[in-house]
Amino acid sequence: MRPLLLDEDRALPADPATRVIARRIHREVRELPLVCMHGHVDAAVLAADRPFADPASLLVVPDHYLLRMLVSQGAELAELGVRPVDGESAQTDPREIWRRFCAGWHLFRGTPTRFWLEHELADVFGVTVQPGPDTADALYDQIAEQLGKPDFLPRALFTRFGIEVLATTDSPLSALPDHALLREQGWGEKVVPTFRPDALLHVRRPGWRADVDALAELSGVDCGSYDGFLQALRERRRAFAAAGALATDHGHLATAITALPPADAARVYADALAGRADDRDAGAFAGHMLFEMARMSREDGLVMQLHPGVLRDHDTDVHARFGPDMGFDIPVAAEFTRGLRPLLEAFGRDPGFRLVVFTVDETTYSRELAPLAGAYPAMRLGAPWWFLDSPHGMRRFREAVTETAGFYNTTGFVDDTRAFVSIPARHDLARRIDAGYLAALVAEHRLGMEEALETAVDLAYNLPRAAYRKAGADAG
Amino acid sequence: MRPLLLDEDRALPADPATRVIARRIHREVRELPLVCMHGHVDAAVLAADRPFADPASLLVVPDHYLLRMLVSQGAELAELGVRPVDGESAQTDPREIWRRFCAGWHLFRGTPTRFWLEHELADVFGVTVQPGPDTADALYDQIAEQLGKPDFLPRALFTRFGIEVLATTDSPLSALPDHALLREQGWGEKVVPTFRPDALLHVRRPGWRADVDALAELSGVDCGSYDGFLQALRERRRAFAAAGALATDHGHLATAITALPPADAARVYADALAGRADDRDAGAFAGHMLFEMARMSREDGLVMQLHPGVLRDHDTDVHARFGPDMGFDIPVAAEFTRGLRPLLEAFGRDPGFRLVVFTVDETTYSRELAPLAGAYPAMRLGAPWWFLDSPHGMRRFREAVTETAGFYNTTGFVDDTRAFVSIPARHDLARRIDAGYLAALVAEHRLGMEEALETAVDLAYNLPRAAYRKAGADAG
Amino acid sequence: MRPLLLDEDRALPADPATRVIARRIHREVRELPLVCMHGHVDAAVLAADRPFADPASLLVVPDHYLLRMLVSQGAELAELGVRPVDGESAQTDPREIWRRFCAGWHLFRGTPTRFWLEHELADVFGVTVQPGPDTADALYDQIAEQLGKPDFLPRALFTRFGIEVLATTDSPLSALPDHALLREQGWGEKVVPTFRPDALLHVRRPGWRADVDALAELSGVDCGSYDGFLQALRERRRAFAAAGALATDHGHLATAITALPPADAARVYADALAGRADDRDAGAFAGHMLFEMARMSREDGLVMQLHPGVLRDHDTDVHARFGPDMGFDIPVAAEFTRGLRPLLEAFGRDPGFRLVVFTVDETTYSRELAPLAGAYPAMRLGAPWWFLDSPHGMRRFREAVTETAGFYNTTGFVDDTRAFVSIPARHDLARRIDAGYLAALVAEHRLGMEEALETAVDLAYNLPRAAYRKAGADAG
Repeated sequence: MRPLLLDEDRALPADPATRVIARRIHREVRELPLVCMHGHVDAAVLAADRPFADPASLLVVPDHYLLRMLVSQGAELAELGVRPVDGESAQTDPREIWRRFCAGWHLFRGTPTRFWLEHELADVFGVTVQPGPDTADALYDQIAEQLGKPDFLPRALFTRFGIEVLATTDSPLSALPDHALLREQGWGEKVVPTFRPDALLHVRRPGWRADVDALAELSGVDCGSYDGFLQALRERRRAFAAAGALATDHGHLATAITALPPADAARVYADALAGRADDRDAGAFAGHMLFEMARMSREDGLVMQLHPGVLRDHDTDVHARFGPDMGFDIPVAAEFTRGLRPLLEAFGRDPGFRLVVFTVDETTYSRELAPLAGAYPAMRLGAPWWFLDSPHGMRRFREAVTETAGFYNTTGFVDDTRAFVSIPARHDLARRIDAGYLAALVAEHRLGMEEALETAVDLAYNLPRAAYRKAGADAG
Repeated sequence: MRPLLLDEDRALPADPATRVIARRIHREVRELPLVCMHGHVDAAVLAADRPFADPASLLVVPDHYLLRMLVSQGAELAELGVRPVDGESAQTDPREIWRRFCAGWHLFRGTPTRFWLEHELADVFGVTVQPGPDTADALYDQIAEQLGKPDFLPRALFTRFGIEVLATTDSPLSALPDHALLREQGWGEKVVPTFRPDALLHVRRPGWRADVDALAELSGVDCGSYDGFLQALRERRRAFAAAGALATDHGHLATAITALPPADAARVYADALAGRADDRDAGAFAGHMLFEMARMSREDGLVMQLHPGVLRDHDTDVHARFGPDMGFDIPVAAEFTRGLRPLLEAFGRDPGFRLVVFTVDETTYSRELAPLAGAYPAMRLGAPWWFLDSPHGMRRFREAVTETAGFYNTTGFVDDTRAFVSIPARHDLARRIDAGYLAALVAEHRLGMEEALETAVDLAYNLPRAAYRKAGADAG
Repeated sequence: MRPLLLDEDRALPADPATRVIARRIHREVRELPLVCMHGHVDAAVLAADRPFADPASLLVVPDHYLLRMLVSQGAELAELGVRPVDGESAQTDPREIWRRFCAGWHLFRGTPTRFWLEHELADVFGVTVQPGPDTADALYDQIAEQLGKPDFLPRALFTRFGIEVLATTDSPLSALPDHALLREQGWGEKVVPTFRPDALLHVRRPGWRADVDALAELSGVDCGSYDGFLQALRERRRAFAAAGALATDHGHLATAITALPPADAARVYADALAGRADDRDAGAFAGHMLFEMARMSREDGLVMQLHPGVLRDHDTDVHARFGPDMGFDIPVAAEFTRGLRPLLEAFGRDPGFRLVVFTVDETTYSRELAPLAGAYPAMRLGAPWWFLDSPHGMRRFREAVTETAGFYNTTGFVDDTRAFVSIPARHDLARRIDAGYLAALVAEHRLGMEEALETAVDLAYNLPRAAYRKAGADAG
């Protein structure tokens, strides 16, 4: 059995001269509260605050990072406990799922998933041996036992993790009942919703028409006309802001954002209601609606988050059988210089507007995003996203972006996770990588130590708060 | 005269803390047999097993890496011994060619060619001084003398190099006589053919019609219809497999692979036979035939290798005068997410299918290839190819790919060389770079030493065998 | 107050083993003369040789690197002393502008601007504390006082900086009076013009017609026909060469360079004169004219510089209010393999032609530019340009390019600055980064120390001279 030990210096630079500086910088930030302005944890988990069911359903089944890697080496999704949408059978014994995961542990060598899981297992559950076929059962028992204890209830973990604020991601069609419950119980400042209207902006999506009806009902605004549709969205944004939301979130495939003449938008909307919009009109309307979302952001102050360029559900059959978020979302090349131009020309220098852009196309870092963020005051670069939320991914981001955009046109760390228990590990890794990057600047005499310490605190804590306009934020 | 010494630590990380770990890892793999599943060595060389003629025709004239660099600084191809196709004169004195090469030795500083040649000169020929104007003649004499000895016959070198298996690249129109000869002499397991049908799949290529006739003759299948054409290809694949082939190889410019309706494919084929297919049809047919090759791979088990995205013979005049492979093949941007989608949806989760993808467009590593290989079980990422088979090229590959796809969705090292004597140098360099990458993971406490050693052996030996489904392969 | 100290080892590799080698290499090149073959310093400054006015107008107002960063964090251009074109008011007190800049000093952490400014402040002006709100006034006074001294006149600084030659960038419509004046005073070898005809090649640009008239008048050639236009350009190139020019410079957005049939070119030109060329024709004509510029370069020996792929004046409103070069020029994806093919096929192996290519799209380094420069003898890769003229930018360039193109297909360092006082800092930084790159090759036993020293001198001094064909150049 291989031991699992979290070394104090993990993910810090190997060079001894730089490491000693990085260690000092990391010490400055390691205990700072976690600001989690973007993510996919279900508010219901915190509202209900019931014990997590078992190790597999907590750590394996909902994590598409894990699923896809095991699938890529021959595992079946059903084997891993993912239930097919048509009700076909899937593995239901969590211990068997856990065993399957442990048998594939070597596949994660060199990945951030491995780093995060080691951190979670050791730090949250006190595990001291590596997962593997010979340790699977013992680990399962150890974790399962702890999940039954009060210290491992969701809110207890939230507090233990040092989370200051956690943003969820929510449909405009949600009445946000869990957030309301949390608010009643004094957790309203800690768990806030985020307005994600993607589904409503794609008029050719199956189910769009029904969603528009639901929007009308929930908002109390007639959506029979384009103006009504805009008004209903405005209304829901207002309700989200009242429920504590600080931001909206937009995950379109394309980056082109161009306003249509209002009459054209109204015509497409009418066609869509009548079920006769074509793909071209639908695409133009989606790009137009992002422009309208920017306009509303300027009005209501919600920060606009954009993370384009992912082709969702690449394997149609996997999607049909198991639904979305199964690890088959694959990036495509992105373009921002021309795509964001109309939006930035309209709102990019408006003090009332804030745009945060994420990408999984690294080629745009130095070529497009850093130059744009280094010019337009409304724009900030989000943290390396998804596949790039990794040690080398974060290093490449800082190296490609900082020299053009500086540190202060980035948001600092944003975690974007579905896996609640991984949150501290993700923040810790980011803080270590940033400490290493800053330490290299110090070691190369490009930055003073005092400035490096200040910058590290800004990246870990002040910049995310400032980027999302948390009350009292003081950096950026 | 500058000494030529192969340092034990060459190409290992400079940082002393990491180097000591890398050295230990490299020691574990340095003597492992060489698995060479993809390359361009001529089987006839091994079948005939005659002495190599001279230093220039062995090391300079056939190596387009060398030629292009010398040409880029003013040398003429004819000066370097490349005979123009129209029979114009070229340098025929190998000593003069060798002198021209030695005079340009400084041009290779910092390139992998320099690293490989140093290794070859020192390790294979016992050379102890750097090439240069003042040492050219002495080196020529030293190498020429050795080439006459039995120890320097092709098979003796093959054995000395520790090659376990060497795949060649062959036309479907070859009856594989050299492979047959090798098989008779007990070398059939050691030298295996690879099925490369590119020329037959491009119906507008000059000579295509004659090649179809040759295909019909060799396969004994009438190619007068599209179905016959498919059947003839199937037949030749079967013959290759019987001759030991494990894989096919495809080097199209484009990445779009989409099946045509059979009737459309049959129509284009008929038009092509009649000499009236247009460029658009020809392009669609080539993409379609890759889909059919995938379908046949699933049937016959030959691994499908794809390396798209190179514009061949960029300088038309050089091509007209000297033919292909003169260093004027230049990459273009590649796209895989959409281009491979139909193929992967059809076969990507089929246990009978295996796809290995190479690229010279690094932008696709983290954006497209690693996410795809980290999801579809049929797919593996090939090693960094061509220009990227270099120290920094390999480092960037591991850094961009590992965090998303892990190690086990890559093939480990694949050398892809025309230069027989460079094979051990190329494997050694790859093993050093992988040792360095793994050592950094160990030094950053992201991987245990025992796991690093296992992974190094997998990358050097087990993964290439498993990726190409060598009998008895046990990793991946 | 934070001290400002220039460490001897700044920007050298942090690893102690590599640093000691890098230090030795840097010592070999640090005092070499500065060869500045491309830039935007105004020749009038050196021709007049009057004292610089004040710290702000010397160091802040004309530097769009500084302006854009301050603007990206909320400063107004007018606040920074940039006068709106319509005569609206702007800050005119240089001390206030200086204070605004000092207040934003932290924004430059990690950027090359910070590195350059520290070097300038310490080395040129003897400053010993970091800029900041508390030091702004003292620094202002210290620099202002020195600007009044004879040692700080432009020519005195030129000599102190060790500049051997400085190329300016000039319109074909300039009669080059300042260069004439410099020549009369014995500075003709030191300050040379560069022929930049972009404005004349874009026939839809407002003002084009008037510029053609000015061209006709200055050249004495009737531009009523396309042939006359070509002849007039030829004439101006001749005049530039006679005034010492070694090169032309071309900054088009697109990279496609394809010759039109002469009759088509003549037709578009005639349409343009008549004010009825459309955008498509204008684009084709611009690409065609680059081809003609290459043809003229082959005739007159002027080195052709190309730096495509930047969308100028991204924010239309900023451009309308403040004019060009305000930090809102944003790169787009570039393509060279197909775009340069006609030009390289025509002239790429012609000993009379020299092409130097710059890019701000790093994705083309290893994929397109290094393979092209490693094949065509006429082509050299320029230094990392603009946003990429930075520590990591230069490292990535060497790592991506060297293994395919070697060192000798690059130009060595080219500074491209508007900020006269930053020239030594820029060369020093480049020499440090190249020393670090070479030191890593030595530390990894891929290059001997003696060769590294030779290469460093070539990169810093001999290669730029050779690339631009300075008389007596002896490398490349």
